[in-house]
Amino acid sequence: MQNHRSIRKFTDQPVTDAQLRAIITSAQAASTSSNMQAYSVIHVTDDGLKSQLAAFAGNQAYVSECPLFLVWCADLHRYAQAAHRHADTPITGNAENLIIATVDVALAAQNAAIAAESLGLGVVYIGGLRNKPAEVSQLLGLPQLVYPVFGMCIGMPDQEPLERPRLPLEAVYHENRYMDNEAAVTLYDETVRDYMNVRTGGKVDTTWSKEMAGKALRPREHMKAFLKSQGFGEV
Amino acid sequence: MQNHRSIRKFTDQPVTDAQLRAIITSAQAASTSSNMQAYSVIHVTDDGLKSQLAAFAGNQAYVSECPLFLVWCADLHRYAQAAHRHADTPITGNAENLIIATVDVALAAQNAAIAAESLGLGVVYIGGLRNKPAEVSQLLGLPQLVYPVFGMCIGMPDQEPLERPRLPLEAVYHENRYMDNEAAVTLYDETVRDYMNVRTGGKVDTTWSKEMAGKALRPREHMKAFLKSQGFGEV
Repeated sequence: MQNHRSIRKFTDQPVTDAQLRAIITSAQAASTSSNMQAYSVIHVTDDGLKSQLAAFAGNQAYVSECPLFLVWCADLHRYAQAAHRHADTPITGNAENLIIATVDVALAAQNAAIAAESLGLGVVYIGGLRNKPAEVSQLLGLPQLVYPVFGMCIGMPDQEPLERPRLPLEAVYHENRYMDNEAAVTLYDETVRDYMNVRTGGKVDTTWSKEMAGKALRPREHMKAFLKSQGFGEV
Repeated sequence: MQNHRSIRKFTDQPVTDAQLRAIITSAQAASTSSNMQAYSVIHVTDDGLKSQLAAFAGNQAYVSECPLFLVWCADLHRYAQAAHRHADTPITGNAENLIIATVDVALAAQNAAIAAESLGLGVVYIGGLRNKPAEVSQLLGLPQLVYPVFGMCIGMPDQEPLERPRLPLEAVYHENRYMDNEAAVTLYDETVRDYMNVRTGGKVDTTWSKEMAGKALRPREHMKAFLKSQGFGEV
């Protein structure tokens, strides 16, 4: 786990049905809030669909080229259907339920990722599906109270990327009380500068905080309206 | 991973510093959206704080009694601080950023859980912290753009609970297009009935859909206002 790298280039070797089943079964074993299991996973096997999803994700070719592409969805629809077998209590996509479903799908997906890596496969998450969430939802026939959180490419690695260094432990870890640690961020800025320098052969000069400043310019403001359209209306 | 059970009773054996470091380092290795690492983890060592958190979580004694208690927080504060080193682009807790941070913390926490289990430890997630999120945030000094998503108890298991059966794979797994599978839910209702019957020695007669109908009566409506108070104001 500590050697995790995102893999974006895969050999042609297919992921077997037994591997797929092990991956999904591992995902299902993850913890889930009150046993709600508020997620669904869509295995996209159709080449046309994969190409469209690759385009929605910002023309990431590995989405269409990877041996196994999964779309992980937060899913309150099945929960609502089940509850409504017994009572017509309204099930809303309120903030709490959005959090439950988003956490549930992330825990399941991370188990899938670890299971895949333990089988010698490589994975990369595709948050880019949230560039065009309404289009993705329509393409995959997602009902109300379901939204696509991210995709995941899985396959046999055909590259060996550098491990990306993370923030110093002290920046994310606190004891008893939240404490800023700006010195750790300053240190990490230099770590990222060195890493990007090596990775790009000296072509990119950046730091973590510069990357974050760039990221702040791309806030995907459309997500609020999209979530509302999928029934997460009270968020 | 496929044998995961939540553990709610622990021996007195402490979690060592080496184990804690392995757990946090594994968490940090998880995938993260655009390398934002939008989470923090607070290790609560103070007995007074642990007791208060146990009360906030609905008097779950294992929160105060477990050897290691972690509070996992979605954290956009550090990201905002870093970005503001270079530009004053406003960083809001909009829906997209809420999702990024909630996913990031969940991926990291699930890596921590798997790492702990691989060391022979047991874990349970404590979503109950969201019963009193404002009180938890004040107690731990969480700044704006940070919120507590869940806690986690870790320690050497002192119980061997049954594995809780999950939905049939066919209920959560779809190919190319989202498809309801109500037959799988009906089947699972009976699986849960049998499981609860065994677990409680015949004292509880329920099904999954009945549990979900009960859950629907407890919607934690306060989360929206709480998130707004923490700066996730545009959600």
